[in-house]
Amino acid sequence: MKFSSKVQKCGLSPMRKFHPYAVAAEAKGRNIYHLNIGQPDIETPKAFFDAVRSFDQPVLEYAPSPGVPALIEAIRDYYAALDMHFAAEDILITNGGSEALQIAMNCILDDGDEILIPEPFYPNYNTMARTCGAVIHPVSTSPEEGYFYADRRRIEAEITPRTRAILVTNPGNPTGTVLTHEEMEMLVDVARQHDLFLIGDEAYREFVYAGEPLQSFGEFTDAAENVILIDTVSKRFSACGARIGCLISRNRELMAHAMKYAQCRLAVPTLDQLASAALYQVGPEYFAAAREEYKRRRDTVVRKLQQIPGVVCKCPKGAFYLMAALPVDDADTFQQWLLEEFEDHGDTVMFAPGEPFYGTPGKGKNEIRIAYVLKQQDLERAMDLLALGIRAYQQR
Amino acid sequence: MKFSSKVQKCGLSPMRKFHPYAVAAEAKGRNIYHLNIGQPDIETPKAFFDAVRSFDQPVLEYAPSPGVPALIEAIRDYYAALDMHFAAEDILITNGGSEALQIAMNCILDDGDEILIPEPFYPNYNTMARTCGAVIHPVSTSPEEGYFYADRRRIEAEITPRTRAILVTNPGNPTGTVLTHEEMEMLVDVARQHDLFLIGDEAYREFVYAGEPLQSFGEFTDAAENVILIDTVSKRFSACGARIGCLISRNRELMAHAMKYAQCRLAVPTLDQLASAALYQVGPEYFAAAREEYKRRRDTVVRKLQQIPGVVCKCPKGAFYLMAALPVDDADTFQQWLLEEFEDHGDTVMFAPGEPFYGTPGKGKNEIRIAYVLKQQDLERAMDLLALGIRAYQQR
Repeated sequence: MKFSSKVQKCGLSPMRKFHPYAVAAEAKGRNIYHLNIGQPDIETPKAFFDAVRSFDQPVLEYAPSPGVPALIEAIRDYYAALDMHFAAEDILITNGGSEALQIAMNCILDDGDEILIPEPFYPNYNTMARTCGAVIHPVSTSPEEGYFYADRRRIEAEITPRTRAILVTNPGNPTGTVLTHEEMEMLVDVARQHDLFLIGDEAYREFVYAGEPLQSFGEFTDAAENVILIDTVSKRFSACGARIGCLISRNRELMAHAMKYAQCRLAVPTLDQLASAALYQVGPEYFAAAREEYKRRRDTVVRKLQQIPGVVCKCPKGAFYLMAALPVDDADTFQQWLLEEFEDHGDTVMFAPGEPFYGTPGKGKNEIRIAYVLKQQDLERAMDLLALGIRAYQQR
Repeated sequence: MKFSSKVQKCGLSPMRKFHPYAVAAEAKGRNIYHLNIGQPDIETPKAFFDAVRSFDQPVLEYAPSPGVPALIEAIRDYYAALDMHFAAEDILITNGGSEALQIAMNCILDDGDEILIPEPFYPNYNTMARTCGAVIHPVSTSPEEGYFYADRRRIEAEITPRTRAILVTNPGNPTGTVLTHEEMEMLVDVARQHDLFLIGDEAYREFVYAGEPLQSFGEFTDAAENVILIDTVSKRFSACGARIGCLISRNRELMAHAMKYAQCRLAVPTLDQLASAALYQVGPEYFAAAREEYKRRRDTVVRKLQQIPGVVCKCPKGAFYLMAALPVDDADTFQQWLLEEFEDHGDTVMFAPGEPFYGTPGKGKNEIRIAYVLKQQDLERAMDLLALGIRAYQQR
């Protein structure tokens, strides 16, 4: 049977690629420290489960295609408190941030079009762009520069007649880079000048560790036609399993097109929407505690990494990921070796190899992404295992 | 700003097109009987809400991309009881049947490809196919023949070198047609002979009213490479708001490609999956009661429709929809008139105009789709309103 040319260009998730090796290692009795998946261990606020339990309609009906009004209002209030003011029509509730991204790309990307994304980037962007017949045009960075990309000349040099949008994840996954206000302003200006959409994937907005105010591309009301925000409750409230996100834009034509896809898939789950609306009642102390915890974890991981000879890792400013270059030839081979050959007191460690986060062929071969979503003590042990593993691997 | 050529070819849902007119009519104090949307009023089994309430994990984590194992097992057991035996890898849990359809089409349709669908068909298929750059090639039917399409010559005549799949909704939405076993066998044989996928959208499998056994294209194990099933808990358990469906196929290459899209959107909501697994514990008495109720409603609607002079409507065998041709020039204009000009004791009625259910331009102009999802008494009144409306409209 013949399959579409687009799906044949797509791949499986690199974060899940080593799953079979992990299963085999566990079958041998290995205990694996998982730094490969961004599943936070912070408790989901009770408000979510309380809301779910208090649902008392006899029929679980379709929600409206644009989303449950109570959730849209909760999101409007959340932004209003950050001095960003959106109309209800500017917000479309989606199946996680993932669907918001896919809908945004479906609306703007044609076959052969390009979307500019700084590399390393979240690998699922590839599948989303390829589904539209488009390709990701990467903006290069380096571990030595801390994956810095917000340079006007560097970005403008990559714009071609087929470029339709710039997509930045801020705070960054996988790099943890955080843009300054001036850098955001510059990106908005580039988008406006070149008539491009600027998609801000802001899933990790709350996760910044230098006491800076929360930022969003939604602040730039003078670029209302260009800016598209991707938002989600997944990381903000440690509610990944709710799969509730949203697409936000003041571009009414875009939102009208997006509604076609929203109606096509009918609705987003009713209970998860109602419960996610309740999440927004959570006070600032929830975020402060989560931020404090992740900051401590980041500091641990960075300190431990920088102690390993040959590792290149600048301290990232946000999210709960970082990229690092290792003193190994190929992080992929190294990961497989860690799962098949290595152990220390029965333990080993898993990360995400860096290459699939790059668009430029051959880049990122000796890099890894670490998600610091484990408790402090486990993180310490995981980093020790990484250090031991690197030494043992080098001395094979 | 420039938008994709594909989204520009897509439209809004015809079922929701008259929503603003309905709002305006309600503002004038009109009471509207809704026959336009397929939202059942049957109670969702309590097992769903009990399962949701008993969730006691502190973190609402991502579910596995292919789905929660308990739900996959529940679905396997459901099919095994119908003597269809699937491996866990044959089943991918999706965000409703809608996502299963979109993933299936993404896997097999390229730009310029055609998918053969008997018309009238579910209009959202248009958006799904266009998202892939493909088009729907309709197989024509007529109200006078009860929308019969399962004729080998008629179908084979429409196959072109660009045809990649045949999609049938069985039992049918919007027509309520139900295939015989021999007709299903013929369709499978056509698919096999022409190397096409056969997509069976079987969302309404339980809703058949002549005491016939439940049927599925999944029975045809000798066409394992060709057959793709679309399934959902939405109508089966009156749980539309759960948005839990699945894609089922024994074609392993297809399932491997589908997994790329599943991983790209990470997961389907955790709670809805766990609760949907519990739905499958519901006994046969639940379906028997629902079937009995819908059969009574169908009989009412058909009896009333056939009493209206000039209406063409054959009694459909399944689902909870029917199409009928009305003695009006344009069902769209008629619907608008019903909402803006007509009332009887303050009441009026809404249906879905038929034209958007057709792929052939100009067809279905005087047809409507009725969803018989109201209680018996309300249905009687709604049909009386339709009859009164037609008479008044003709006498304007």
